[in-house]
Amino acid sequence: MNKITILIHCKDLSGIIASVTNFIVEQNGNIIYLDQHVDREQDIFFMRLESEFIGDNFSTDAFKSAFKTTLAEKFEMKWRIYSSHNKPKMALFVSKYDHCLYDILGRYNSGELNLEIPFIISNHIDLKPIADSFKIPFFHIPVTKATKAEAEDKQLELLKTYNVDFIVLARYMQIVSSKLINKYPNKIINIHHSFLPAFVGAKPYHSAYKRGVKIIGATSHYVTEELDAGPIIEQDVAHISHTYTIEALIAKGRDLEKIVLANAIKLHANRKVMVFNNKTVIFS
Amino acid sequence: MNKITILIHCKDLSGIIASVTNFIVEQNGNIIYLDQHVDREQDIFFMRLESEFIGDNFSTDAFKSAFKTTLAEKFEMKWRIYSSHNKPKMALFVSKYDHCLYDILGRYNSGELNLEIPFIISNHIDLKPIADSFKIPFFHIPVTKATKAEAEDKQLELLKTYNVDFIVLARYMQIVSSKLINKYPNKIINIHHSFLPAFVGAKPYHSAYKRGVKIIGATSHYVTEELDAGPIIEQDVAHISHTYTIEALIAKGRDLEKIVLANAIKLHANRKVMVFNNKTVIFS
Amino acid sequence: MNKITILIHCKDLSGIIASVTNFIVEQNGNIIYLDQHVDREQDIFFMRLESEFIGDNFSTDAFKSAFKTTLAEKFEMKWRIYSSHNKPKMALFVSKYDHCLYDILGRYNSGELNLEIPFIISNHIDLKPIADSFKIPFFHIPVTKATKAEAEDKQLELLKTYNVDFIVLARYMQIVSSKLINKYPNKIINIHHSFLPAFVGAKPYHSAYKRGVKIIGATSHYVTEELDAGPIIEQDVAHISHTYTIEALIAKGRDLEKIVLANAIKLHANRKVMVFNNKTVIFS
Amino acid sequence: MNKITILIHCKDLSGIIASVTNFIVEQNGNIIYLDQHVDREQDIFFMRLESEFIGDNFSTDAFKSAFKTTLAEKFEMKWRIYSSHNKPKMALFVSKYDHCLYDILGRYNSGELNLEIPFIISNHIDLKPIADSFKIPFFHIPVTKATKAEAEDKQLELLKTYNVDFIVLARYMQIVSSKLINKYPNKIINIHHSFLPAFVGAKPYHSAYKRGVKIIGATSHYVTEELDAGPIIEQDVAHISHTYTIEALIAKGRDLEKIVLANAIKLHANRKVMVFNNKTVIFS
Repeated sequence: MNKITILIHCKDLSGIIASVTNFIVEQNGNIIYLDQHVDREQDIFFMRLESEFIGDNFSTDAFKSAFKTTLAEKFEMKWRIYSSHNKPKMALFVSKYDHCLYDILGRYNSGELNLEIPFIISNHIDLKPIADSFKIPFFHIPVTKATKAEAEDKQLELLKTYNVDFIVLARYMQIVSSKLINKYPNKIINIHHSFLPAFVGAKPYHSAYKRGVKIIGATSHYVTEELDAGPIIEQDVAHISHTYTIEALIAKGRDLEKIVLANAIKLHANRKVMVFNNKTVIFS
Repeated sequence: MNKITILIHCKDLSGIIASVTNFIVEQNGNIIYLDQHVDREQDIFFMRLESEFIGDNFSTDAFKSAFKTTLAEKFEMKWRIYSSHNKPKMALFVSKYDHCLYDILGRYNSGELNLEIPFIISNHIDLKPIADSFKIPFFHIPVTKATKAEAEDKQLELLKTYNVDFIVLARYMQIVSSKLINKYPNKIINIHHSFLPAFVGAKPYHSAYKRGVKIIGATSHYVTEELDAGPIIEQDVAHISHTYTIEALIAKGRDLEKIVLANAIKLHANRKVMVFNNKTVIFS
Repeated sequence: MNKITILIHCKDLSGIIASVTNFIVEQNGNIIYLDQHVDREQDIFFMRLESEFIGDNFSTDAFKSAFKTTLAEKFEMKWRIYSSHNKPKMALFVSKYDHCLYDILGRYNSGELNLEIPFIISNHIDLKPIADSFKIPFFHIPVTKATKAEAEDKQLELLKTYNVDFIVLARYMQIVSSKLINKYPNKIINIHHSFLPAFVGAKPYHSAYKRGVKIIGATSHYVTEELDAGPIIEQDVAHISHTYTIEALIAKGRDLEKIVLANAIKLHANRKVMVFNNKTVIFS
Repeated sequence: MNKITILIHCKDLSGIIASVTNFIVEQNGNIIYLDQHVDREQDIFFMRLESEFIGDNFSTDAFKSAFKTTLAEKFEMKWRIYSSHNKPKMALFVSKYDHCLYDILGRYNSGELNLEIPFIISNHIDLKPIADSFKIPFFHIPVTKATKAEAEDKQLELLKTYNVDFIVLARYMQIVSSKLINKYPNKIINIHHSFLPAFVGAKPYHSAYKRGVKIIGATSHYVTEELDAGPIIEQDVAHISHTYTIEALIAKGRDLEKIVLANAIKLHANRKVMVFNNKTVIFS
């Protein structure tokens, strides 16, 4: 059994859905999921479709080729087609905080995540024992002002060697350069510990404490060149009160960070996220 | 411009989506919304579709007729087709509590609800001034053990006279008989003041207080013969603490009741709810 | 039966709680509620206490006088003492949006609010019928650039005449001047339709839509001279998705605004809010 | 510096708070936290108080003794006094599910939990590697119908040997007998994977799926002889939809279970929970 997932966006035109569904039927596919969205302000059509193909002689490459000439060019689509045989490869970048790392590896271990983790990169050695206990290769690449460019080259080499599809910054306390961002556009997921756009930048819990908010949050977003301004994938919040010290805010926030980041990873890995104009469409 | 909404469910078969979308195209329609769901356990396919038809000579009846012979019979579909020209007519049943009534009429007044309220029925006279201030006909139909059957006949007559499509029990403190339920299957919406299935029946806030729960809830569901056991449309909850008296629970609960019921009404009126096997499919 | 509520804040010193509770006992009071909070960063002690006094010869004024000389001066307290016989008087300022007004008056009518509403002021005439139906005096005071100072003088006169204790801006679409703010410090409650500090200023729902957030919020705060920067009393949020248009955001936001504002009003009217250094302490 | 926490409940009488606070002052203590609650229905007074004592010659035992004769007997109090020098010892019982175990040990490792974990007991060997990687003793005590009594004796012996203060059933898939419950009254914390009292007993996610609820929950409670009916410490919920399969419910539920159980553990370990009449008072 072959199963593919198709993601499409293009200018909204009459007849797209029927054309796509017909094409699937002609290719002997059975549609098992279809959802679409029209951004009426920008007049853009988005679609996500899953289809199964029975029979051994199905070729994803042949399908893609036919899709391109029959449909994509006609409607001037931006499109991606994924075979379910290929699990995405996710590189984890961490620094010293371990809560997101434990959470992700715990889920990975229990089979909750539909992806592979070829390695973990860190600018510190501290979390190596955790990587070891989960038997995942750990590369220690220190980053200083002087060695930043060199460190990034090492990262890029590893990413290439292992055919990494996307990167997760699990509280990686370094700003990623445009070189890496441009190689992985909308493929680097960060977790920011505030409900963006409030409290952009460093020490958001301290800012939240100072402002006296009654709610704290966490936001997972794709990394773009502007700090903490990329497309938002997932957000969640928790109620707090005046009794919370900064330390209590940070502890409460850790739970938000873990769950928001894990949800963003699952959405991305299951190919449920589309990005357009710095916003996301999240399919169910 | 004509716009229709189609709701379908049937056994899950290959080719349904393509057949339906093709049919729309052949009828010169432009699909503006499509969502579907497959209940894999029961092997049932659900679809909701909105389509626009340009041109003055579109006839909803002709469309329905063609849909029936071309598609519905082939796939043995259960189906409903609504024209956007017809706003659903909603009868409100109330007793003495006014919070849901104020909330619904406030929303109605501000144009938030896509429906018409031809009248309000109550077994008490108390809320008539509110109905008057919103200029909506109010019928006082007292209910006693002795007069219950007679009262229900009066209700049914009014419902028929005004061509009512669905009924909302906005804290109507009477059990509705099977006669009414059978006339309006999955068309009577109740608000129950607990997170069902916890605390079925009378005085759920008192039961919640006694059990010492840390969360209270409200549930909007379709009325079926079994008390508080019908298909759930919408639920929400609020956190409470040991400091809440029963009175405080009730006050907090009123806010839940209002919002949960309003959301259920909107979902139903916008034809986003399908019922199968005592559960709902809620489209976005 | 006399019941008083005491609110205190002062530098944190040893022995305050014992001194205050002893004082109450000496005055033949029975403490029925006591909660305290210490802001360790600023070394400030906050306390809220409710006490009952049996016997007809209790005088709140005499109590206040004794409290002042015995305790307040010794510990250099800022303090307020309220008798439960005096319900606070709340003036409502509105413009054209009716959802918060309906919500507040509905609660007022049902006895949920422990306060009096002597009048409603609006810069537009539109909502007068609602005020009329609830039988509350409505003063139409138009505001233009030219007449703003004059309008505010009229407002101040009404506030004085009716002995108003605090003001609620229930989506009042005017910026209140420092003259009014200084007369009612930490006594003017506003509802802002975002999770502050995100989206300060005009049209926050439009900004939220543009940024592509997955959560919207509402914030009730005391009005200070800096726009939307006053002490936060209450906040709440709701999850949204890419399917929400701006209109849908606004509709969803209305529910947040109503409930957040109502909660803030209740906290303030029940003397559960203390303000220090632009932050609030909210007692249970 | 010595710090103690006092928990009291007794019949509500006039003068308790003043008597207690005076007593602390006489013992040269500085009260740094005081909260109280009166259950008016049952006329019971609850208080939690933290006090610091400067000076080397403070003795918790002497304090307890003085407290008993001076206060506790007079007011017929039930009371507990804890020194902050003694961290509570928590035994973990697990079976095969690892998500709560990872979560608790991750928090333990990062210093978030104010307690000690002397050992982990399991009826299966599966999770031993996790215990090993966190360097915590792991005892495999299989449980069958035939060996249940014997297994429990082994458990009791370990609990005694290690001076365990309380037990956490982190998805321990065995019913605990009354022998253990009676030795640890209100000291065995369970996590149940539903919003109790809905879906008592086995397979609550399956029941939730069948009932078609729109919200799932998790509940942490003290274990009593009646199944899933003990005093509730903490609850939380998550919204779901018709698109969730049972597997998706279970995955979503795992996140609830982890956080609800962790919060309950923290409340208990920080001596913030009092139990009366099968309900909890939770101090802030």
